[in-house]
Amino acid sequence: MKEHIVIVGSVALDSITTPFGKINRGVGGSSVYSSLAASFFSPVAIIGVVGADFPGGFLAKLNKKGINTDGIKREPGKTFFWRGKYSWDISTAISLDTQLNVFEKFDPSVPEYLRASKHLFLANIDPVLQKKVLKQMKPRKSGGFTALDTMNFWIESKKKHIGALLPGLGALLINEAEIRQYTGEHSIIKAARQLLKKGVKTVVVKKGEYGVGCFSQKGMFFLPAYPLEDAVDPTGAGDSFAGAFMGYLASSGKITWKSIKKAAAYGTVISSFTVSGFGVNGLIDLKKSDVDKRYREFVELVHFEEVRRIGG
Amino acid sequence: MKEHIVIVGSVALDSITTPFGKINRGVGGSSVYSSLAASFFSPVAIIGVVGADFPGGFLAKLNKKGINTDGIKREPGKTFFWRGKYSWDISTAISLDTQLNVFEKFDPSVPEYLRASKHLFLANIDPVLQKKVLKQMKPRKSGGFTALDTMNFWIESKKKHIGALLPGLGALLINEAEIRQYTGEHSIIKAARQLLKKGVKTVVVKKGEYGVGCFSQKGMFFLPAYPLEDAVDPTGAGDSFAGAFMGYLASSGKITWKSIKKAAAYGTVISSFTVSGFGVNGLIDLKKSDVDKRYREFVELVHFEEVRRIGG
Repeated sequence: MKEHIVIVGSVALDSITTPFGKINRGVGGSSVYSSLAASFFSPVAIIGVVGADFPGGFLAKLNKKGINTDGIKREPGKTFFWRGKYSWDISTAISLDTQLNVFEKFDPSVPEYLRASKHLFLANIDPVLQKKVLKQMKPRKSGGFTALDTMNFWIESKKKHIGALLPGLGALLINEAEIRQYTGEHSIIKAARQLLKKGVKTVVVKKGEYGVGCFSQKGMFFLPAYPLEDAVDPTGAGDSFAGAFMGYLASSGKITWKSIKKAAAYGTVISSFTVSGFGVNGLIDLKKSDVDKRYREFVELVHFEEVRRIGG
Repeated sequence: MKEHIVIVGSVALDSITTPFGKINRGVGGSSVYSSLAASFFSPVAIIGVVGADFPGGFLAKLNKKGINTDGIKREPGKTFFWRGKYSWDISTAISLDTQLNVFEKFDPSVPEYLRASKHLFLANIDPVLQKKVLKQMKPRKSGGFTALDTMNFWIESKKKHIGALLPGLGALLINEAEIRQYTGEHSIIKAARQLLKKGVKTVVVKKGEYGVGCFSQKGMFFLPAYPLEDAVDPTGAGDSFAGAFMGYLASSGKITWKSIKKAAAYGTVISSFTVSGFGVNGLIDLKKSDVDKRYREFVELVHFEEVRRIGG
């Protein structure tokens, strides 16, 4: 059995309205999207918390996909709830209601047998909780790799806590507006360089429908988004990108600049499925063969030259 | 001697202010940027008009680069003048002053010996003038290829005239906001399909710092922009893209989906030089070896897989 990627993040019930429809109290949350995405490549274990209202059948569905839920606590009270809507261009979410509920007192605990896992993904939640999980993991040898995702809300309210997590970080996933917010730099290249100097090994800047940029000491790398005619709900796109990115890296063994590039391509492909359905609908019944097919299509959509060697 | 690409468009004096500096009455215009860009790949001939105030030495500079200026008339009066500024994110130009001057009565005339040229680029000017030039060209055999660029101003004021030029067009170059404006479609894919149905063979959608998308019956193709830390003046970026795109296609012989992809990559590379300097400064002393070097770098920046065969 391959080792699990440990993912800590939110498990949520989301009510989402977009110009193309809506979903009421659907399962969502950063750890759900990212673990579903990662599960195409590697076993995953979620660390999180749900309330009494959480549909138990959903955890069984996750288990069937190789997603370990031993680290998901069930507490009395309600599951974290988010209500949001997107305007006609579905690029920006407007939060209408956020109820932390059981998340308010969440004290994450990584099951003992998962603490030696090499791959850790700190999905988008309070950086104080991200740190708690990081500290519980056993010191990981050179093969260890931690990635972190965050959002504008935490950059505004807990920037110092995020800053403390950056040195030595394998990958920081952050969107375009957020990296500008965090660094105060308009130029994404300068902003990324600032974060590399703080000890982040790879900075991944997500630009939504405009794709993604990766920055490391090895260089830069850019991908457009997979083109979609009918994106219906962007919720979870960034989480799915991160999960697939992490999943591919865990499955590929060594972390190299070449594997980072391919991981970003798989992240792009998986998140294109996410936004094609409401909530997790685009991911939950997705087959690995569909992922691989779209990956091959994506190669044709962006390559213009035969490459002798990409480097690795 | 290879055949000329015939380019009709504006020849201008531009006064430009960006957050990074300014230039006063520098030579610009859609045909100047595009012919400079195309000249790296193929001989070019400009059809245009200048006033008595136009620096004659500049035409000699163009000639030295293999750019034929026999089709540039010199009229009494002033050269077309544009004053514009860009705000801090240098993504959108604000026009402060536009003086048509000699352009007001411009009656383009293609020198007889250029009328059989296979490659015609109708750079961004009044579509009525674009049509006049198109009609002067001799019926071109199957190898003929016409590309057209336009802008919001003409879409607003002369949409029908643009529409009349679309059937059979080899390539339409248009930016993201403009294709939405023209088609009324928010989805770029749907918008491009609408234009393909009108008989355009390749629709090239320019997204500025977010790159470019190409659409044809053969499929779709996307490129991010070449990443620049210090873009100082975006004026002429789209014109340069178009010129290099056209120049590469003319030099490569057959127009195939593969050559379209590479042409878009060269367009991306050349326009990155354009925005690195004020006015035409980024292009005027540029060497082909610098272009080729950046093209090879660009391959590494966007390819993530070895490709067996791209198709063509």
